[in-house]
Amino acid sequence: MHRTKVKVVEDALDANNTIARANRSDFDRESVAVVNLMSAPGAGKTTLLEQSLAGLDGVRVGVLEGDVQGSTDADRLSALHIPVTQLNTDSGFGGECHLDANMVRSAIPGLSLEEIDLLVIENVGNLVCPAEFRVGEDARVMISSVTEGEDKPLKYPLMFRACEMVVINKIDLLPHLDFDLDKFLYHLEAVNPGVARILVSAKTGEGVDAFREWLIEVAGRVGGVAREGRPEAATV
Amino acid sequence: MHRTKVKVVEDALDANNTIARANRSDFDRESVAVVNLMSAPGAGKTTLLEQSLAGLDGVRVGVLEGDVQGSTDADRLSALHIPVTQLNTDSGFGGECHLDANMVRSAIPGLSLEEIDLLVIENVGNLVCPAEFRVGEDARVMISSVTEGEDKPLKYPLMFRACEMVVINKIDLLPHLDFDLDKFLYHLEAVNPGVARILVSAKTGEGVDAFREWLIEVAGRVGGVAREGRPEAATV
Repeated sequence: MHRTKVKVVEDALDANNTIARANRSDFDRESVAVVNLMSAPGAGKTTLLEQSLAGLDGVRVGVLEGDVQGSTDADRLSALHIPVTQLNTDSGFGGECHLDANMVRSAIPGLSLEEIDLLVIENVGNLVCPAEFRVGEDARVMISSVTEGEDKPLKYPLMFRACEMVVINKIDLLPHLDFDLDKFLYHLEAVNPGVARILVSAKTGEGVDAFREWLIEVAGRVGGVAREGRPEAATV
Repeated sequence: MHRTKVKVVEDALDANNTIARANRSDFDRESVAVVNLMSAPGAGKTTLLEQSLAGLDGVRVGVLEGDVQGSTDADRLSALHIPVTQLNTDSGFGGECHLDANMVRSAIPGLSLEEIDLLVIENVGNLVCPAEFRVGEDARVMISSVTEGEDKPLKYPLMFRACEMVVINKIDLLPHLDFDLDKFLYHLEAVNPGVARILVSAKTGEGVDAFREWLIEVAGRVGGVAREGRPEAATV
């Protein structure tokens, strides 16, 4: 009697990762780099985008705006005259506290990928679940506001580990807070050694140029490969 | 042919609510009032408890500290010399982004309910999911920090609607922020008309007395009934 042995690869059975790869393939086909931007509520994701997405040195950028409901952030970003698409998790996705690959997939047909080089996905404000769901991005970045305290890397280590870049925002408020930056960086180093970080005040503009340069660098990872004749990505 | 008609009551099938009622019954048996304290990460839940739980006018208080992992907040509160129990959602509960009734139930045997009059449950820092799970509490309160912006009631309406009290914290920072308090209150009124609110700076102490008085009032709701000879709650 013959038996066929099926090797079960856990990752292949993970529906989210499977869909994330399908998204990735779609993004690759149009040479679009994708950044997944995460933070706690009110850390300054939208304000940082308002400040940084203008003047991206020829990089055509679009935004996918994730919220439980409403479109206040998308409305704010529409002033930048860039393509902004609203994705609400309460309509058909049960009011989820995060974006997952399938939600992003549902939005792809409306994204006009052929018209952009860089897609920034502004995730739902939450330091827990967004870190668990890849959506097909090239890079994950989080914002930690100094108003949130030095202990956040210890309390939400998965989020701080999931990112290749940590933006430390609202540094204009440091003189008015009991925030110990060295202690924060010590905790950050403990959970994600060597992770890149930028000190930013989206309000005064300090550090915004460095964040903009990082976005351009991420865009170049995909666009650069395309310019060197990368073979067409396989369709899913 | 006879048919027996079973009336399906949705609420009775909701496992979380069933367990929350069991918790409630346990709390009632010991005449313990329970407050479910929620907020975004870093809004100041622990600092407000540090400032307000001393001097509760004879009310014996305990804290159930909810975190994904770690015990930094419980360690801080232990300085108050009150009973503090740590509940981590990553050990056995999949790293959940909120507390639910079953997690709280698992902690009850360690809470020494007979020794306290008021239990404050500090939920996981998150403005989405904690609002969806009752845990057997008498009152739900949330903290919204002015550093998070005026739009939060519009973006997280379920959380702002779920609470009977909204603490607006970090008002000492108002001179340094572009935060429009009137606009915030307008949005709050839109999603939860007439909800009680207290302006607080856990740093300077402003408003902390009012929060302490509210805690004492909640404790009195249960204790007061008990003193008037409320019948023993039914066991589950």
